[in-house]
Amino acid sequence: MADPRTAALSYAHQNSQVFLDYLKDLVRIPSVSTSSDHAKAMKDAAENLANRLRGLGFTNVALHPTGGHPVVFGEYIVNQSDRKTVLIYGHYDVQPAEPLDLWKTPPFEPTEIDGNLFGRGASDMKGQVAASLAAVEAVLQAGEPPVNIKFMIEGEEEIGSPNLAPFLQANAAMLAADVVLNPDAGMLAADFPTLTYALRGLAYFELRVYGPEHDLHSGLFGGVVHNPAQALIELIAGMHDADGRIQLPGYYDSVREMSAEERADIARLPMSEDFYKAQTGAPQLWGEKGFTPAERIGGRPTLEVNGLLSGFTGKGSKTVIPSWAMAKISMRLVPDQDPDEVHRQLVQYLEQKAPKTIRWELTKMAGGPASFTNPNHPAAVAMSQAMETIWGMRPVFKREGGSIPIVAEMQEILGVESVLTGFGLPEDNVHAPNERLHLPTWYRGIDALIHFFYNYGK
Amino acid sequence: MADPRTAALSYAHQNSQVFLDYLKDLVRIPSVSTSSDHAKAMKDAAENLANRLRGLGFTNVALHPTGGHPVVFGEYIVNQSDRKTVLIYGHYDVQPAEPLDLWKTPPFEPTEIDGNLFGRGASDMKGQVAASLAAVEAVLQAGEPPVNIKFMIEGEEEIGSPNLAPFLQANAAMLAADVVLNPDAGMLAADFPTLTYALRGLAYFELRVYGPEHDLHSGLFGGVVHNPAQALIELIAGMHDADGRIQLPGYYDSVREMSAEERADIARLPMSEDFYKAQTGAPQLWGEKGFTPAERIGGRPTLEVNGLLSGFTGKGSKTVIPSWAMAKISMRLVPDQDPDEVHRQLVQYLEQKAPKTIRWELTKMAGGPASFTNPNHPAAVAMSQAMETIWGMRPVFKREGGSIPIVAEMQEILGVESVLTGFGLPEDNVHAPNERLHLPTWYRGIDALIHFFYNYGK
Repeated sequence: MADPRTAALSYAHQNSQVFLDYLKDLVRIPSVSTSSDHAKAMKDAAENLANRLRGLGFTNVALHPTGGHPVVFGEYIVNQSDRKTVLIYGHYDVQPAEPLDLWKTPPFEPTEIDGNLFGRGASDMKGQVAASLAAVEAVLQAGEPPVNIKFMIEGEEEIGSPNLAPFLQANAAMLAADVVLNPDAGMLAADFPTLTYALRGLAYFELRVYGPEHDLHSGLFGGVVHNPAQALIELIAGMHDADGRIQLPGYYDSVREMSAEERADIARLPMSEDFYKAQTGAPQLWGEKGFTPAERIGGRPTLEVNGLLSGFTGKGSKTVIPSWAMAKISMRLVPDQDPDEVHRQLVQYLEQKAPKTIRWELTKMAGGPASFTNPNHPAAVAMSQAMETIWGMRPVFKREGGSIPIVAEMQEILGVESVLTGFGLPEDNVHAPNERLHLPTWYRGIDALIHFFYNYGK
Repeated sequence: MADPRTAALSYAHQNSQVFLDYLKDLVRIPSVSTSSDHAKAMKDAAENLANRLRGLGFTNVALHPTGGHPVVFGEYIVNQSDRKTVLIYGHYDVQPAEPLDLWKTPPFEPTEIDGNLFGRGASDMKGQVAASLAAVEAVLQAGEPPVNIKFMIEGEEEIGSPNLAPFLQANAAMLAADVVLNPDAGMLAADFPTLTYALRGLAYFELRVYGPEHDLHSGLFGGVVHNPAQALIELIAGMHDADGRIQLPGYYDSVREMSAEERADIARLPMSEDFYKAQTGAPQLWGEKGFTPAERIGGRPTLEVNGLLSGFTGKGSKTVIPSWAMAKISMRLVPDQDPDEVHRQLVQYLEQKAPKTIRWELTKMAGGPASFTNPNHPAAVAMSQAMETIWGMRPVFKREGGSIPIVAEMQEILGVESVLTGFGLPEDNVHAPNERLHLPTWYRGIDALIHFFYNYGK
């Protein structure tokens, strides 16, 4: 008789069509969370997943109500106290399919073409949830599982998970785990298995500068008042030096420097200057001196102007000196920057630099710290080895430039780190028409997950 | 028998009520040029003025059609070839009266309260046109006038005189004159007779900076592209130095410096730091080092940001790196700056300073040179002496910060300089509710105009 790992892999291979059919069933449900038009589909998707968990022998399966769409929970606890527990995160909601006329196949009729499954949510992330369920099914069919498994599948990821933090707080005991498996992060390419171990945080502000009490005629008053648009510009221009370094006092003091190993890992990524030029269409790249583009995105903090508004912005000309000017300014933060500390640094900069010819007002809009998973966490090592078994190469360890607030919340509220991975590809058109899932990669992903459970539980 | 000057002054004093009644008739006509709702009133006002000119014995009186509202013209030519000719400029259109609920008296029912006449157009500029007509009537009643007189009263000043330049070009011979009397400029205060001898010009641009081909996610791409809003800010920040001097190459090369006499004249103006602080409400004044506020407005060029737009400007936060940013930028020019030369200087600045990380586009929106009337022009001297006779003080010679395109057009197209004066006051609420005319000043103005004709024609 084969060992459970081999048996599970065999089961998975024999049932590949069944797994795919289940994914197609999920994709057929138009569970768009943004609009109330899809309320029934949202409920259908949640109930479908709950039934799937019950079918696998999960217990305590329920749709937990929240302020918005329910969270599907279920657990499979082995009667043996030394098992580690993996909490698998997923979301059953999808982005709207619009603009519909750009789809080559109907978004909610999953269609296989040349090894890809087309449909909204096929990649983000019904495909990833279905892969996790398939791997769990295969493991359970092979006997007693090596780990306890919990699923937490929310319905509001695409609208910013507004109700997830309270849910985590209220259900911390139920959700207790040794690690979170979050397959919502994806791969760099079909032949580049990827583990994301760091995400940047965010601090977002609105800065307003006020000058004269009302708009002034630039002829009658031009030359005697400090134009607030100019004053704002002068303040923002000073926030970077010529090397692209941010000039807020103490801004880099708590920035955790990348280790030599990390920089070596990042250097292996297929993300050269040319890659970013092609992705952005910018005439030339720009950024902090002394770091490669991939290092700057993954491991260095930024300060961006997200919006500017002042005075007359319509067609033609109006000779006005505006009475105020506004900028939206945000920073991407890295470990161990603190959004509140960054707020104080920005205030201090403004107090030092703002001239007495204007008044200024700063409002904090949003913020959250960066998150960082130890690449040597046993679950990360288990996943790395699983991927190496399947792809024949050690996965790339990637720092992600964006923020996934859920990961920070899991760390903060549950005290649990996340293994961030997934089997979607950059060319999957997530959030866009003709979303698709690369099926050979998806099947490899199921196998990798099976290995992960046995590697981690051994 | 009294000399003509004395006779004219006596006539004016005896007919003060008749003159005021005529002004009230004019104010009763709601000749608002902006909207077609007032088409009939516009025609009524033009015909009323034409009839008044005919009543004074003017010839060639006509409403000259233009692309918009007609120009009223008429002339009184003395049969004697050595008479100089004064072309009196006026406009019969007024600003809209809205917001109506802020008026204390109906805008088109002229109402006398405490020595002021309230009503739309009472000051700007039906009062000034009526004063000119009154003075001319008094002079004509006293015998053969000392100068030839032409009136040109347009109907589109409040909408930017879009059809005046073609009218001047087509009728240059008819409009030939030695000087233009333009009473649309006003006084600094009731006890400060004022002659405006310089107006600033204008050069207005839209500057667009383009970076990535489309908006980018600031998490996924923050740190590798030059944010176009930041690049625009850096370009504009460099346009002034710390002393408020404009840094476009060669910008001050052709600036005509104010003479010591001019600076002494400006120093007499009742326009201190406190005056401008009160007028603008700015926390502190600002401007080019080495010049007083009044000098900066009247005699120094500026560069202002009139508008800024980029990225996300709504409520809340959006973590976007915008693909473009826009600024409206304009300069107030002084003699002898050339708007086309300034355009070239701005292009040169951008070519020198713009980084290769972005593309930029500059569009010229509007422009016109400054205008300058020699304060020693015989007509200016005649007006100055007339004012000194009436007010007992030499008038202040003022540089105006704004532009009156008509003055430059008269200079360019007809080759005639303007004497810019008028009897409106800063507190007249022109372009605002409760517009009013200070009647004691208005009557003094009529007397001053009578003196002007005799001084200039002698």
